[in-house]
Amino acid sequence: MAQKPSIPKGTRDFSPEEVAKRNYIFGKIQEQFKGFGFQPIETPSFENSSTLMGKYGDEGDRLIFKILNSGDFLKKADEKILVEKDSLKLTPAISEKALRYDLTVPFARYVVQHQNEIEFPFKRYQIQPVWRADRPQKGRFREFYQCDADVVGSNSLWQEVEFIQLYDAVFSGLNLEGVTIKINNRKVLSGFAEVIGEKDRLIDFTVALDKLDKIGEEGVKKEMREKGISEEAISKIQPIFSLEGNFAEKVAGIKSILQTSETGLKGIEELQFIQDAIEAMPLKTAKLDLDVTLARGLNYYTGAIFEVAAPATVKMGSIGGGGRYDDLTGIFGLKNMSGIGISFGLDRIYLVLEELGLFPETVTQNTKVLFINFGDKESLYTMKTVRELRNAGIIAELYPDNAKMGKQMKYADKRQIPFVVLAGEAEMENGEFTLKHMKSGEQQTLDLEKLKRALA
Amino acid sequence: MAQKPSIPKGTRDFSPEEVAKRNYIFGKIQEQFKGFGFQPIETPSFENSSTLMGKYGDEGDRLIFKILNSGDFLKKADEKILVEKDSLKLTPAISEKALRYDLTVPFARYVVQHQNEIEFPFKRYQIQPVWRADRPQKGRFREFYQCDADVVGSNSLWQEVEFIQLYDAVFSGLNLEGVTIKINNRKVLSGFAEVIGEKDRLIDFTVALDKLDKIGEEGVKKEMREKGISEEAISKIQPIFSLEGNFAEKVAGIKSILQTSETGLKGIEELQFIQDAIEAMPLKTAKLDLDVTLARGLNYYTGAIFEVAAPATVKMGSIGGGGRYDDLTGIFGLKNMSGIGISFGLDRIYLVLEELGLFPETVTQNTKVLFINFGDKESLYTMKTVRELRNAGIIAELYPDNAKMGKQMKYADKRQIPFVVLAGEAEMENGEFTLKHMKSGEQQTLDLEKLKRALA
Repeated sequence: MAQKPSIPKGTRDFSPEEVAKRNYIFGKIQEQFKGFGFQPIETPSFENSSTLMGKYGDEGDRLIFKILNSGDFLKKADEKILVEKDSLKLTPAISEKALRYDLTVPFARYVVQHQNEIEFPFKRYQIQPVWRADRPQKGRFREFYQCDADVVGSNSLWQEVEFIQLYDAVFSGLNLEGVTIKINNRKVLSGFAEVIGEKDRLIDFTVALDKLDKIGEEGVKKEMREKGISEEAISKIQPIFSLEGNFAEKVAGIKSILQTSETGLKGIEELQFIQDAIEAMPLKTAKLDLDVTLARGLNYYTGAIFEVAAPATVKMGSIGGGGRYDDLTGIFGLKNMSGIGISFGLDRIYLVLEELGLFPETVTQNTKVLFINFGDKESLYTMKTVRELRNAGIIAELYPDNAKMGKQMKYADKRQIPFVVLAGEAEMENGEFTLKHMKSGEQQTLDLEKLKRALA
Repeated sequence: MAQKPSIPKGTRDFSPEEVAKRNYIFGKIQEQFKGFGFQPIETPSFENSSTLMGKYGDEGDRLIFKILNSGDFLKKADEKILVEKDSLKLTPAISEKALRYDLTVPFARYVVQHQNEIEFPFKRYQIQPVWRADRPQKGRFREFYQCDADVVGSNSLWQEVEFIQLYDAVFSGLNLEGVTIKINNRKVLSGFAEVIGEKDRLIDFTVALDKLDKIGEEGVKKEMREKGISEEAISKIQPIFSLEGNFAEKVAGIKSILQTSETGLKGIEELQFIQDAIEAMPLKTAKLDLDVTLARGLNYYTGAIFEVAAPATVKMGSIGGGGRYDDLTGIFGLKNMSGIGISFGLDRIYLVLEELGLFPETVTQNTKVLFINFGDKESLYTMKTVRELRNAGIIAELYPDNAKMGKQMKYADKRQIPFVVLAGEAEMENGEFTLKHMKSGEQQTLDLEKLKRALA
C-alpha cells in the first residue's frame, strides 16, 4: 500500500529556494567567524546520554530526544520496571545515546576530551543542527540550526569587545541595519540584589526584572513583592526603572545605586571598558545599548550578557544572544576555563531578512540557459555547447527529452530560467545558436563565442 | 563528579583542520552539482518510522536508529509484550520516529509530498548526514555524510551521459586524476540470465558474478554451481570471464552472447549510446570502462549501474556509485517516475586525497597575523589595526591577554600563524608596527599601509 507521505511535526523540508537563502545567511556568518580567527569544529549528532543529561535542568532532560538501543534492547531491562510501566526509570536501560540539545555542552565535552591537541585560548565556531522535543509552534521547531562562536581559556575583556564587533560585522554583512546589541553584566545584577539586601533572592529578582518589556514596571514590582522582596528594597532600585539617555548616562545612573557593592562596581567597570573600546572603534551599523534588565538564563553567565534585537520596524524576538560563563568545562573535569560565546538565531534572521526584502536576487543560483531538445543528433551538438558553457562558469542544461516544444518552453518558464537556446538542423549546419530571452521574447542567432559572451 | 568525556562508538569529532578539508570536498562537489543545474534540498534528520521501515530490507530495518517517544512512552504499551520482553514488537509502540538511513528514500518522500510545487524533470542534490547502527570498523561509521544528485521524471539516456560527465568534473576539480567510472546495465545482466536459461536465478547469478574481483573466475563458477546453475549454462557465459580491450571491444564481446535476448540487446544499445556520446565529448581526467560484473544491490537498478574506482595506486573501495531506478516514488504512491542518481563517498574521497597529498595547502584558512598584547593601551591601538586588516580581508587576531611575550609567541608558533606584529609604546608613537615573519625570524617596521600590503 502506498503511504501518504508526511514528516514529523516540528521538522521541515527545505526547498531549493529556502536552502539557497539559508546558505546565504550561513555563508555571511561563517565569513565573519573565519575573518575574526575562529576555527570550525563539528561534533556528532548524538552523544552519550551521560554527556547531555543533567546539564539543562529537569525541563531540558525531558526535551532531549533519546535514541533507542539497537538489537534486543529489553533483554537486560529490569522486569519490575517493565511491569510498573515506569518510563522514566526504563529510559536509561534502553537508551544510551541522545540527540544534541545545543552546541555548548558538546563543545565543552570536545574541549576537555581534546585538551592536549588544543592551543588555548581556543576560538571555535560551530554551525550544526540541534534537536528539542519542545511543543512546536510558530517559529519554534524540533530541529533547528545553531551558529555559535566561543572562546575558552581567556578572561580578557577584549573578547567582549570582539564579539560585539562580530555581531556588527555579520549583521552589516547581511545589510540588516539598525539592530541593537543589548549588553548587561551578571555582576551588575548581583550588585542590585546585594544593595537591596536580597542576595539570596538574586534569581527571583532578575527573573522578575527580565520581564520589564512584557509586564511593565508595575508588573515587575508586583512579582517582586510576591516573591517576598520588601517594599524598601524595591524602592532602592527605583532608578533602574527610569534609566534614560545614552550608554554613559545609563551607566552613571546605575553607578549611584551600586556604590556600596564591590561586585556591582566591578560590573560597571567592565561595562565601561567595553563601551570605551566600542566608542574608539565605532560599529558599522549596529547600536550598542545597556539593558540592565537583561538576564537570559542567568545561571550560566558570570560576566557580560548579550542579546541582539532586530530593527524596531520588525516584530521579532531576539536574533542572537550570548555571554561569559566562567566554568564551561568544569562539568567535565577541566577547571578554570573562562569562556565567552555568542549565538545567531538562523530561523529568526531568515524571517527578518524575508520581511525586509534583504535577500539578494542572486541568492538562488538558478540555471541561466536551457537548451531545447530537438532529438539525439541535435542533442549531441547542444551537449557539447552546454559543456563549453559550464566550463566558462555559466549554468546550462539540456532539456533531457525530445518533448513537444511547448512543454519544454513551459518548463523553462516555470523554473524561471532566463534564456533558452534553440539549435535545430539549420543552426547546426552553420555552427550557430538561436538565443531567446524568455521575458522579452527577443531572439538572436549567434555563434558559440558570441553566445558565451551574451550569457556571461 | 566530573565525567571522563567520550563519544559514542562509530561517531567522530572533527577538528578545525578536518572540517576545513571536508568542506573543501563538499565545496568542489557542490560547485559541479550547481554548475550542472542541480538544485539543493534538505530533509529532516528524522522521519516518521513508517516512511523508512521496510524500504531497506530486514537488515536495513535493524540498522535504522529509532528515536524513543517523548514523555510517558510506556503508557500505551501492551503489557503482554512488556512481560514477554519482546523488543521487536515493542519498538513501534514506543518509537514513532527514526533517523535518516540514506538520502534516497527521504528524497522519494519529498518528491511525492511536494509534487505540485516541483517542475519535472526535477534535478536535485542533497548533502546531509545519515545514520546506521552498523558495526563500526575502519572507514565505516555510524554517522556519515552522503552527497547525492538525482534526476526524476525523465528516462532520457542523456542523463546517464551527464552523470558520467559530472563524476569527471568533480574528480577533475579535486585534481584526483586516474579514477575509473565503471558502468554496467541491469538489462545486460538480465540478458545473461535469460540466454543461459536461468532467468529465475538472476540474483544468485549476479551476486556470484559481482565477486569476480575478490574470488576469481573459478570461485565465481563454484558459487554458481552451488546455487544450482548448470555446467552448460556456465559454459555459455564463458566469454564474459575473458573480456578484454577497450569499451567497444568489450561491447562486441558480450553482444555475441546476448544475440537471443531482446532485453540484453536493449542494454547493449544503451551502453553504446552512452559510449558514443562520451567519445564525442571526451572526459577530462576520468576513464569510462565497461564492467559487466558490476551489480551493486541490483534490486534497485533497472538500467545503468555506475561505480567509481579510485586511481589504481590507492587501495580503496569504490568512491562513488549510482544508477537508474525506474520506480523510485512508487512506494509513496507516485507511479512512472523514472529516476537516476549518483552518490559521492565523502569519507573515502577524503582518505584518497590525504594519501595522495591532494589537499591544497590553503585549505585551512588560518589566521595570518597575531598581534602581541602589550596591555590595554597598546591593545586599543592594535585592535583598531586588526579591524582595518579584517576589513581588507586579512585574518588577524589580537592575543587577548597581556601574557608573557614567550607564551604569546609560542601560541602563534603552535597555531602556525605565519606572522606576528609587535606594537609597543615606541611603535604607537610613530604610528608604526613591527612585523615579524615567524619562520625566518625576519623583522621590519612598517606603517599601516605598508603593513596591509605586506600581509595581503
